[in-house]
Amino acid sequence: MGARFASHLSLVTAFLVCTQQFSQAQDKNLLQYVKPIIGTEKMGHTYPGATVPFGMVQLSPETDTIPYEMNGKYNPDVYKYCAGYQYTDKTITGFSHTHFSGTGHSDLGDFLIMPTTGKLYLNPGTATDPASGYRSTFSHSNETAEADYYKVKLDKYNITAELTATNRVGFHQYTFPDATDQAHIVLDLMAGIYNYGNKNVWTFVRVENDTLITGYRQTNGWARTRTVYFAMSFSKPFTQYGHQNYANDVYKGFWRKFDVTRNFPEMAGRQIRAWFDFKVAAGEKVKIKFALSPVSTEGALNNLRTEAPGWDFEKVKQDGQAMWVKELQKVNATLNSEDEMTNFYTAMYHAFLSPTTYMDADGSYRGLDQNNHKANGFTNYTTFSLWDTYRALHPLFNMIQPKRNADMVQSMIAHYEQSAQHMLPVWSHYANENWCMIGYHSVSVIADAIIKGNAPFDVNKALDACVTTARHRSYDGLGYYIDMGYVPEDRNGSSVSKTLEYAYDDWCIAQVAKKLGRQNIYEEFIKRSQNYRNVYDAASGYMRPRLYNGSFREAFDPLKTDNQGFIEGNAWNYSLYVPQYPAEMIALRGDKKSFSRHLDSLFTMHLPDEFFAETEDITRDGIIGNYVHGNEPSHHAAYLYNWTGEPWKTQERVRMILKKMYRPTSDGLGGNDDCGQMSAWYIFTSLGFYPVCPGSEQYILGSPAVKQATIQLENGKTFTVEAPGQSDKNVYVQKVTLNGQPVLSNSITHQDIMNGGRLVFQMGPKPKK
Amino acid sequence: MGARFASHLSLVTAFLVCTQQFSQAQDKNLLQYVKPIIGTEKMGHTYPGATVPFGMVQLSPETDTIPYEMNGKYNPDVYKYCAGYQYTDKTITGFSHTHFSGTGHSDLGDFLIMPTTGKLYLNPGTATDPASGYRSTFSHSNETAEADYYKVKLDKYNITAELTATNRVGFHQYTFPDATDQAHIVLDLMAGIYNYGNKNVWTFVRVENDTLITGYRQTNGWARTRTVYFAMSFSKPFTQYGHQNYANDVYKGFWRKFDVTRNFPEMAGRQIRAWFDFKVAAGEKVKIKFALSPVSTEGALNNLRTEAPGWDFEKVKQDGQAMWVKELQKVNATLNSEDEMTNFYTAMYHAFLSPTTYMDADGSYRGLDQNNHKANGFTNYTTFSLWDTYRALHPLFNMIQPKRNADMVQSMIAHYEQSAQHMLPVWSHYANENWCMIGYHSVSVIADAIIKGNAPFDVNKALDACVTTARHRSYDGLGYYIDMGYVPEDRNGSSVSKTLEYAYDDWCIAQVAKKLGRQNIYEEFIKRSQNYRNVYDAASGYMRPRLYNGSFREAFDPLKTDNQGFIEGNAWNYSLYVPQYPAEMIALRGDKKSFSRHLDSLFTMHLPDEFFAETEDITRDGIIGNYVHGNEPSHHAAYLYNWTGEPWKTQERVRMILKKMYRPTSDGLGGNDDCGQMSAWYIFTSLGFYPVCPGSEQYILGSPAVKQATIQLENGKTFTVEAPGQSDKNVYVQKVTLNGQPVLSNSITHQDIMNGGRLVFQMGPKPKK
Repeated sequence: MGARFASHLSLVTAFLVCTQQFSQAQDKNLLQYVKPIIGTEKMGHTYPGATVPFGMVQLSPETDTIPYEMNGKYNPDVYKYCAGYQYTDKTITGFSHTHFSGTGHSDLGDFLIMPTTGKLYLNPGTATDPASGYRSTFSHSNETAEADYYKVKLDKYNITAELTATNRVGFHQYTFPDATDQAHIVLDLMAGIYNYGNKNVWTFVRVENDTLITGYRQTNGWARTRTVYFAMSFSKPFTQYGHQNYANDVYKGFWRKFDVTRNFPEMAGRQIRAWFDFKVAAGEKVKIKFALSPVSTEGALNNLRTEAPGWDFEKVKQDGQAMWVKELQKVNATLNSEDEMTNFYTAMYHAFLSPTTYMDADGSYRGLDQNNHKANGFTNYTTFSLWDTYRALHPLFNMIQPKRNADMVQSMIAHYEQSAQHMLPVWSHYANENWCMIGYHSVSVIADAIIKGNAPFDVNKALDACVTTARHRSYDGLGYYIDMGYVPEDRNGSSVSKTLEYAYDDWCIAQVAKKLGRQNIYEEFIKRSQNYRNVYDAASGYMRPRLYNGSFREAFDPLKTDNQGFIEGNAWNYSLYVPQYPAEMIALRGDKKSFSRHLDSLFTMHLPDEFFAETEDITRDGIIGNYVHGNEPSHHAAYLYNWTGEPWKTQERVRMILKKMYRPTSDGLGGNDDCGQMSAWYIFTSLGFYPVCPGSEQYILGSPAVKQATIQLENGKTFTVEAPGQSDKNVYVQKVTLNGQPVLSNSITHQDIMNGGRLVFQMGPKPKK
Repeated sequence: MGARFASHLSLVTAFLVCTQQFSQAQDKNLLQYVKPIIGTEKMGHTYPGATVPFGMVQLSPETDTIPYEMNGKYNPDVYKYCAGYQYTDKTITGFSHTHFSGTGHSDLGDFLIMPTTGKLYLNPGTATDPASGYRSTFSHSNETAEADYYKVKLDKYNITAELTATNRVGFHQYTFPDATDQAHIVLDLMAGIYNYGNKNVWTFVRVENDTLITGYRQTNGWARTRTVYFAMSFSKPFTQYGHQNYANDVYKGFWRKFDVTRNFPEMAGRQIRAWFDFKVAAGEKVKIKFALSPVSTEGALNNLRTEAPGWDFEKVKQDGQAMWVKELQKVNATLNSEDEMTNFYTAMYHAFLSPTTYMDADGSYRGLDQNNHKANGFTNYTTFSLWDTYRALHPLFNMIQPKRNADMVQSMIAHYEQSAQHMLPVWSHYANENWCMIGYHSVSVIADAIIKGNAPFDVNKALDACVTTARHRSYDGLGYYIDMGYVPEDRNGSSVSKTLEYAYDDWCIAQVAKKLGRQNIYEEFIKRSQNYRNVYDAASGYMRPRLYNGSFREAFDPLKTDNQGFIEGNAWNYSLYVPQYPAEMIALRGDKKSFSRHLDSLFTMHLPDEFFAETEDITRDGIIGNYVHGNEPSHHAAYLYNWTGEPWKTQERVRMILKKMYRPTSDGLGGNDDCGQMSAWYIFTSLGFYPVCPGSEQYILGSPAVKQATIQLENGKTFTVEAPGQSDKNVYVQKVTLNGQPVLSNSITHQDIMNGGRLVFQMGPKPKK
């Protein structure tokens, strides 16, 4: 008995060890496919720094702090620095704690830290003359960017900078090369992204003791009134400190009593830069833990204590990377090449950056009403780039992050409840609505969650919020839309895009109303969902701007974007946007065949430079023909062949887009990643299906780029995609089975996935017509 | 039995009715002696508006909003408007919610409300051309100012404005003369006191619904970073609303989507003015309840609901006036004339305005660390003008407001705990230290409370706070003082005043240390308390600026104030300032006789105009000879004759000062009331005794101006002062008895008062030598 028991035990142990080793190997494997550097060049607008999944802190290098204005005029270069970092730059100005991932507008860049030695500079200096300030040259050969870990050598100082983070705490580790008593840490509160003239409303720094600093930064930028609080802890005491105030408009009063510039523990003003001096030995590491809070320095301190009590940089990094592995493992995929593996897992990484956590460890967060609230029973999130992310990112979350997605919906409902406008978020960040882009696509996200059964919240309240939002007459042409069935271009610009998107959102509301048995609402909104027809011009065959008098506007070019009734898309692209009724849209335009040919030409035509120049946010790589993948309105377009009876065209198009639009290089993204929407498109499409119409249960089939993928569902089940025969050439689906049964509809449902199962695509080199 | 019982009952009833009637009559009596208009002209810097005792809201008219700068230069007129109102002005710009009482520097004036009709103006216009803006002419004949009630007719609009307040809620009542749909309420967030260029850091307004507005104002003024939150409720719905933003530097972003200027519920920026339109009938009253909070709009709303749930203006006024009667009754005094009664009870009123409540109804307040805190077991106060108020106001509170005074001490200790400088307050308001004036006189207030046995707080912690404050080497010459025994004038200005005041404060610390048995601290600070000797120049007979090299500065004029080593007092006055050791100070200068003659000349000499011009904060009325009553350093001086064996000189001097320095008129105060210090001097002196050295138990006797006064103590006992024979001519004390026993020491103790009893001054027309 004793012997057998022992033997049994060792078998178990062997099994566990084996599993563990395999798992570790696999973990390592997945992490190595995450390359945060992807998209950091040109238009990707991603950042290379350290963060955990959906983390509040994004601790990342800034390569420049370009002013919004140059000589009193808008400086177009500012746009490159939405995420603070451009791969081709030669210098780093420092490391700041908040960054958007892939946005087409910018803000943040809070609390820039720069370690220096020798003569103290408080200004960043210029890229052409880095010796004139604190910035340092660097080279990519001395740079490492991993999930939750960033390392770079600051050549000017020979300082090795390493960054990692917990959810709410950025962890810096600076290794100084030589013994000196002139080691400085600069805390630049004037630095910031898109930091035009007076973006700072107020900044405040308190030296609590010789290792602890607290404070806040309040800005008036994309977010109209945003405040971020911090607590900064040094691993060793500074020897002295001080600051300079660069603003002229600060009342000084009786503070003149003191030399407030040196060793004076309260610093405040609109434009301040602080410094802290250290005496270091050769090779000594100075570490900084920098916690953020949306509500108070007290909250930041509590976050610091809760999440990062110790000083073990390696442990924080390992814990952070373990969090990433856990998230990446939600899809265990094998693709055709290392590059594709990298694309896939970096897409997973980018998809899991936003929305970001926006509450303290104790649940406190700042609400849209500028009061502090407690999130009861949910994690409060912010950074909702909804015009982008309703399309594929939130549907992706409903599949592999349902708990988080439900919390995101609750965050949106909290936003609604705190909104003076009584509206759900449009584009919101940091307790602010910035009103960027169009539509009211929270409605789509909420509908998608409810329709897919991922709604552990008050669904009737959620529907009420959708309805109130959709009836807000003073919002962006909506009054006209309600009264006339379309937005008249001569009363409100981008009118066609708005009409089409309102109609889709209204369909979403109708679906929820139907599910909840609220017939009146259903009828009101299903009727509104037909409004796309009101901007269809049969004469031209395009959606076209219509005027208040009912006529279509004469001036019209379907290739032009500027001032044509659209936004981030021309009539060519936008005319395809009726995701709720693809078949009806096709019928409206003629027959399936002609529509199919029309769609073909989208991918094959040439968009002249004069029109491309009007297409925002993307590089020339971001388009195929006139198909603009770098912007979102056509993200579903390649899937429309499923409604023309030619799914093989979808299959070849989507594989082409995957190849052309995503590369494992710094310039590998052809347009803004848009808080993960571009990445979510990549993930769905690689898996072989796509949510053409969020708010429905259907996923439309395409052509899997994975050979095999196992989706770990939160309900404990797994859903497997297999693609026997798949290769770069074998992009055509020959046959699809779900759990052994043929799939004839070219679609599967969300429930099919949630049930767990096995989706098999038989792949071949030729279309199966 | 039944009959006898009934008869007994009716006797009781009759007695009760009688008492009540008497009490009501008396209440009415006391209220009518409160004239808030006193001190509103010239240098008094009081305000005439509505407030409850120590209330958070001071709702009062502004007669001008003078800019800090005119044509880029400091505008000296701004100083007149420390309390927002100058009696000689002909126009009112509106009614704002926060005011200092009697300060010599300024801030506040938050949330100016102005009711208007007809064409909407959002700018105040000018005093010379009131038609150019919203301001209105008014006349004093149409003006009533009572405790917690202010009424004025706005002549331009024929609107009657009435104001009252609870602790945290201002209550406006505007009676519109004619039916109109053009009745406006202007909410001017650009208005403010001492409102130089960019004082506003940020302002924010949210329209919650058609009767409720919330928001905040954040300023950078005397308080470096002050935020006041509000909730404003209208008695009827507005018909429309809007705002203008006058700042150019506000990022507008995607808010361009909306017409944010009209009926858009979120307004924000540095320079905004909002308006609300009403349709009113002839004679209709529009009422506004305006609640403040130091922490949040949520806090303001809760204050509104808690303190002012209804719309009965009269009831709020009556409740507020009842609060005043309760406080005024703490001293039931009879003086020689109606004018003196008015002076006395208006002094009581002014003494009970500051410090002000600085916490929400639920105990929440903003701390000096800019975090929100809860006051546990005490009321948190702010507005500590300590250089003034340690002298007589806090001693007065220890006598008749001991509970509040102990809470004030707890507020100071909370300030200390939240202070980045680890210092007790110097001059603090609204979660800010403004560092105005000199010394660390919190120490005196704390010592006075502990020595007098009014210390229901951790006395050892309080002493630690005092010691840490007094050892703060980088504070205002204190390092030199600690090392050298004086502040060298060539290193730190106003050095003599600082040395003298530090030495007094150190004596206070020593007294507490002695009482608590902390011998080391006692020895350290009793030694420091002797430092006054180090600035005494025997050659000139004055306290005199001393240099770093140990010598006295050559340039010296004891009548000059500017740049002479003093502040708000010349060497003549300040040389008398050794309250802790009057006898030793007199001995240092020679014998009692010569000192007495010297003191005589203080009151009889003429201060030439050139020197008077240097004396801040006072009118010519504020001095008697070279005795500057309008400033504080000599407030104890008239009592010093008690140490020269000539108390009759004290008696005649103090009666003269009472007569000359206090009159029941708008220009009746010869200098700033200084948050009640001038008034506290009046009250003590009228009662016949004065705390020459706070931190000791002694009150020094003078000459009572009351005929009789009963002090209601919080311990339930009463202390009565009687002055048989007292008249304007009979100012000389012939004999004093306490509870029938002769008082031979010319002083009584705090314990004598707390025990309850009867202090009788026999008065006569001639000095009792």
